[in-house]
Amino acid sequence: MRDEENSAFSLLTSSFREGESMSSNPRIRVGIVGGSGYAGGELIRLLLSHPYVEITQVTSETYAGKFVHGVHPNLRKRTDLKFVSMNQLQEADLLFLALPHGSAMGKIERFTKLAPRLIDLSADFRLRNPADYPKWYSHEHENQEFLSKFVYGIPELHRAEIREANYVTGAGCLATATILGLMPLFKHGLVDTNMIVVEGKVGSSAAGNKPSLASHHSERSGAVRSFQPTMHRHTGEMEQELNFGVKPRVHFSATSIEAVRGILATCHVFLKENLQEKDIWKVYRQEYGNEPFMRIVKTKEGVYRYPEPKILSGSNYCDIGFEKDESSNRVVIMSAIDNLVKGASGNGVQAMNVMYGWDETLGLDFPGLHPA
Amino acid sequence: MRDEENSAFSLLTSSFREGESMSSNPRIRVGIVGGSGYAGGELIRLLLSHPYVEITQVTSETYAGKFVHGVHPNLRKRTDLKFVSMNQLQEADLLFLALPHGSAMGKIERFTKLAPRLIDLSADFRLRNPADYPKWYSHEHENQEFLSKFVYGIPELHRAEIREANYVTGAGCLATATILGLMPLFKHGLVDTNMIVVEGKVGSSAAGNKPSLASHHSERSGAVRSFQPTMHRHTGEMEQELNFGVKPRVHFSATSIEAVRGILATCHVFLKENLQEKDIWKVYRQEYGNEPFMRIVKTKEGVYRYPEPKILSGSNYCDIGFEKDESSNRVVIMSAIDNLVKGASGNGVQAMNVMYGWDETLGLDFPGLHPA
Amino acid sequence: MRDEENSAFSLLTSSFREGESMSSNPRIRVGIVGGSGYAGGELIRLLLSHPYVEITQVTSETYAGKFVHGVHPNLRKRTDLKFVSMNQLQEADLLFLALPHGSAMGKIERFTKLAPRLIDLSADFRLRNPADYPKWYSHEHENQEFLSKFVYGIPELHRAEIREANYVTGAGCLATATILGLMPLFKHGLVDTNMIVVEGKVGSSAAGNKPSLASHHSERSGAVRSFQPTMHRHTGEMEQELNFGVKPRVHFSATSIEAVRGILATCHVFLKENLQEKDIWKVYRQEYGNEPFMRIVKTKEGVYRYPEPKILSGSNYCDIGFEKDESSNRVVIMSAIDNLVKGASGNGVQAMNVMYGWDETLGLDFPGLHPA
Amino acid sequence: MRDEENSAFSLLTSSFREGESMSSNPRIRVGIVGGSGYAGGELIRLLLSHPYVEITQVTSETYAGKFVHGVHPNLRKRTDLKFVSMNQLQEADLLFLALPHGSAMGKIERFTKLAPRLIDLSADFRLRNPADYPKWYSHEHENQEFLSKFVYGIPELHRAEIREANYVTGAGCLATATILGLMPLFKHGLVDTNMIVVEGKVGSSAAGNKPSLASHHSERSGAVRSFQPTMHRHTGEMEQELNFGVKPRVHFSATSIEAVRGILATCHVFLKENLQEKDIWKVYRQEYGNEPFMRIVKTKEGVYRYPEPKILSGSNYCDIGFEKDESSNRVVIMSAIDNLVKGASGNGVQAMNVMYGWDETLGLDFPGLHPA
Repeated sequence: MRDEENSAFSLLTSSFREGESMSSNPRIRVGIVGGSGYAGGELIRLLLSHPYVEITQVTSETYAGKFVHGVHPNLRKRTDLKFVSMNQLQEADLLFLALPHGSAMGKIERFTKLAPRLIDLSADFRLRNPADYPKWYSHEHENQEFLSKFVYGIPELHRAEIREANYVTGAGCLATATILGLMPLFKHGLVDTNMIVVEGKVGSSAAGNKPSLASHHSERSGAVRSFQPTMHRHTGEMEQELNFGVKPRVHFSATSIEAVRGILATCHVFLKENLQEKDIWKVYRQEYGNEPFMRIVKTKEGVYRYPEPKILSGSNYCDIGFEKDESSNRVVIMSAIDNLVKGASGNGVQAMNVMYGWDETLGLDFPGLHPA
Repeated sequence: MRDEENSAFSLLTSSFREGESMSSNPRIRVGIVGGSGYAGGELIRLLLSHPYVEITQVTSETYAGKFVHGVHPNLRKRTDLKFVSMNQLQEADLLFLALPHGSAMGKIERFTKLAPRLIDLSADFRLRNPADYPKWYSHEHENQEFLSKFVYGIPELHRAEIREANYVTGAGCLATATILGLMPLFKHGLVDTNMIVVEGKVGSSAAGNKPSLASHHSERSGAVRSFQPTMHRHTGEMEQELNFGVKPRVHFSATSIEAVRGILATCHVFLKENLQEKDIWKVYRQEYGNEPFMRIVKTKEGVYRYPEPKILSGSNYCDIGFEKDESSNRVVIMSAIDNLVKGASGNGVQAMNVMYGWDETLGLDFPGLHPA
Repeated sequence: MRDEENSAFSLLTSSFREGESMSSNPRIRVGIVGGSGYAGGELIRLLLSHPYVEITQVTSETYAGKFVHGVHPNLRKRTDLKFVSMNQLQEADLLFLALPHGSAMGKIERFTKLAPRLIDLSADFRLRNPADYPKWYSHEHENQEFLSKFVYGIPELHRAEIREANYVTGAGCLATATILGLMPLFKHGLVDTNMIVVEGKVGSSAAGNKPSLASHHSERSGAVRSFQPTMHRHTGEMEQELNFGVKPRVHFSATSIEAVRGILATCHVFLKENLQEKDIWKVYRQEYGNEPFMRIVKTKEGVYRYPEPKILSGSNYCDIGFEKDESSNRVVIMSAIDNLVKGASGNGVQAMNVMYGWDETLGLDFPGLHPA
Repeated sequence: MRDEENSAFSLLTSSFREGESMSSNPRIRVGIVGGSGYAGGELIRLLLSHPYVEITQVTSETYAGKFVHGVHPNLRKRTDLKFVSMNQLQEADLLFLALPHGSAMGKIERFTKLAPRLIDLSADFRLRNPADYPKWYSHEHENQEFLSKFVYGIPELHRAEIREANYVTGAGCLATATILGLMPLFKHGLVDTNMIVVEGKVGSSAAGNKPSLASHHSERSGAVRSFQPTMHRHTGEMEQELNFGVKPRVHFSATSIEAVRGILATCHVFLKENLQEKDIWKVYRQEYGNEPFMRIVKTKEGVYRYPEPKILSGSNYCDIGFEKDESSNRVVIMSAIDNLVKGASGNGVQAMNVMYGWDETLGLDFPGLHPA
């Protein structure tokens, strides 16, 4: 009875209600496949505030029939959507796929029949070379012909292709931070492509919402845990996307730290020729100066002299800083994102905005908090 | 040179720029007095996204001449405002005062000459009875005649008065959580007004941004610190605002916990007569059912069965839950807010919206994050 | 092969090895039943450094056959004990029972046949009145005749009885903090026994090591979670042990906070007569002045003016502070412990020391860390 | 009066009191110069439990005349020592110097007159080459003739020299973790000495106890802060101590993370020849198999498969793990310590034990906590 009353109470009364401010703009119908996980929840949060989107369905096998806000409590009083089972999925203008890795590749043709446009946040269509799947994911790809139909969906790298694409894949969160951090130096051919060492530090939400002893609070709290010193799957994406004529070799390690959200990728690269910091500034400014979500953070004073993921929670920014070692040719690039936003759902929404020709920042206006 | 380049780089390029989406709506000119603190920073964040507001000036004596985003790094690429000294303050339609407690009362007449409307976030005009200042703040009030001109600015309690007011005062963060949690029971006369025990748990940002050994990370991290077991200043506001004919006696204690933002007030009250939980539901629904920022959180299943401040960071919600003790007449009310939003700047923006007759939720649409 | 090498490597080489410093003292043989949980692990840590104890067996059904240090990684290179199944349990001088609640009561006669002395850390024999089990634990007690054979094992309350006892029960962690905080005032009859409000704040380890969504790091991190606003099981122990002629009524609530270890009980009581703080000092000094693990923490300056659990991790101290409300008859008592030490295993070791007539502090010398 | 009572109360009553268990062992008289900081406090904690040491004096200019436990609250009821001013310093058998960097070098001759043996925890005598001081510390060394008189005090590297030394210097915390992690590979000449990338992750206590905005809890909490991407001072020590005939080039970066204590150094090195993991095992086992404080942590199952600083708080262990990249010649070495123990005071006590020919583990028996 309590819950009944509760649900009676929570009938939406405020102007926050999705759709309410819908004016004459026709909204596209968006379905979310796999909406009970962390990326799915973040996608719902972002799309509920998007002026041109109506979320028509959100699937979850575990929670079918239950309120979305029962799983994502921040959305209480923001939506009265309930989860549906995937077999109830209907046609839509666009489907976001937020399923566990490996779950979308076998069903992709079904999804293409339901919607002309797909954005897949999983790893299932990120790698262009089918041989990379056994290497990084320990299994053959089940639908290799689709690999070439998907565009790797980081707009800062592939905006023009995304604009023309029907099928877009998201990017790995650690891959996104690393690739965006390093791209300008690689594109301009300034660094040794054989000696790149990247340390990715990442919060617990990147591991999803499935409980285990390793993720149990008493064990995970305060951890500085080398969960993947070598052979991290995202390395495949990094080497693919940083290939500007020469396939690079990325020496990547991933460490879990005390945080729920956030990634800091610390990237050590070595300049081929002697450059000054101002030369490096120019390169980054050239590549990112007009990007709405890229910020160069590098100041001489203040607490936040370099990128910090803690002020990015909830925002779609990728903050990048760098420092040249005065006594060697090393440059350290620091790249920070919220793994669930620029590293997953926010980037997906940005890609959707590009696909539809909308202002790229729609639905992505939250700047993050300070202090946080 | 580095900073120069940086500032060149950070010229705003995105559609986030304040004012950019300003259409034909005339925006009011808002000045913020004391903008380098945490409440000030939050106010800037919220007002930058408000469709009817233009922030014209932000003062800081310490940072005058410096970029606002140097102090509030989340606002980088969102505003190119620089702090000005208070003596450069110009006329405005509305001034927000976010000065340290005790700083506004002596200058209030100057502010009234600069703007017809004031919203003061400090404690300087919260208490109606001048005698309460020596009691709770250990000094006489310097401008007692102004106390009656200010309306205590929690819209859920004083909406009609705020609508007519020129001068509005914010509320203490711990007071806000407690008052909103208890008001329905007090207004309806259901509980013993002499025996109220409230435990306020609060994050570090409530203590402001002035470093000290007690706030030094190694000392403050993981603390469960009884910083004010008795005689907390906000008690005066609680007893003032929960007075519905009978002055109540609130036994309040405040404990710092490991969090940057967030308050949970756990309130123990005792029913005069035997009521069921469904009766209590009715009272809360009656008082808050139409409130855009009040949510009753009380469910039988799920992780978030009761209010939790951690999902409220950045949002203006006040979440309230309760449980009746099966074996006594005690009711435990739990009330959660973000101390910097509903407990300070967000509530101030909401009050401004009320003063101007605007939709109360303008600028306050961020729902909070999950996970967080 | 890796593990084999590892185990070869970890052959104990240092003087830390248990038993090594054993001189002519005969050590008692101690078995630990249920050693893979958090209280079990802490017990092993403490007993490994106890000069008069040899741990002969540690049981775990899940980990039987595996190294103890595989589950409790802090004990690597400290012990080469392996877990055994409970059905391999042999005779011993003393058995510690660290099983989940409800698991010991049905097997207690078996344990009594294996050892003349038992210390049970579970709740199975804490309550003297059989009727309290259905009330607080929702089931009948299966071995009611044993309830009177167990002594409630907080030495500060029952030292003389423990000295004579063969069967001792531990105490609930939240109960221990509350009872030790309030005992002097109740014993001396100074406070209203009908109006006691206690807010227990507790870290995640108190909930054990079984993963669930509620304990999943992304959900639990930063939580301020009212997990038991009323009807917490430990209330039964509090009301039992604070009964000095009059059964008191404890209004208790429990809140999870961001911490792995630690409890702060904030207790609000009301003086019958007007007393000064110095009078209260006298009472606490009288009761605890000679206690090795009780400290009164109440200073006018410094960061740690009142008890703080964060500096107690790993130590057996119970720190107590108090403040009288200048404007009412309320006294706020703050009591802090490490829930796994003074709230469980450390208290059990202290009780063992009392049973054997040893120095009460043996094995319990770690003072806690600062900073922490 | 309150404090007076408090101090009356806290007269030591337990067997914890330092000196109490002193038997016929003559204890050496130890003075601590600079005892109010974090390393100083940790030193006091460790030495209070050392059977052959009596702390005779602890200096602090700020707190002279005040109880040590007022600054280090974990030591309440463990010692009634009060701080004295440095000008009251008397003769002793050994002086520990725990002053800020740069403070000891100018006073060293005075200290040598007060005690025949010195252990300096600061950086003032760590570097053998005077030219390294301007390079890494931006100032000339004031007493260069003393540099050659000090032994770099990591026993695992310089045990024989420490045994004969009168003057021993501690090591930098990040240097200790890195050097111990890499020494076996360098000593055996297995890796490229020109390409070493080390990412040091470190808690807030490593920065000391002086408050600042950067260390203010709301700013520092949850930080992943690149405080020294290049040119960290400890690099000088690393290159000095890893020089086995060839001066190596260490590319080091330091990042602050959310923790009070703890360091994880993640070290990327490249094998000259193809080695298997079992070959690497052999080298580490050969160097560290008999070391009491070195543990190799590398398991296939469990939560703690690699070193984790969180279980080392308070302990003197250095845990080391490694993983060879299957697809390249990279080896990732992970090295974890408590920066205040093995990274400072614990290592100093260990060095003292070596100097006096005592069991190296005396005073250093605390194994760390799980969970923590």
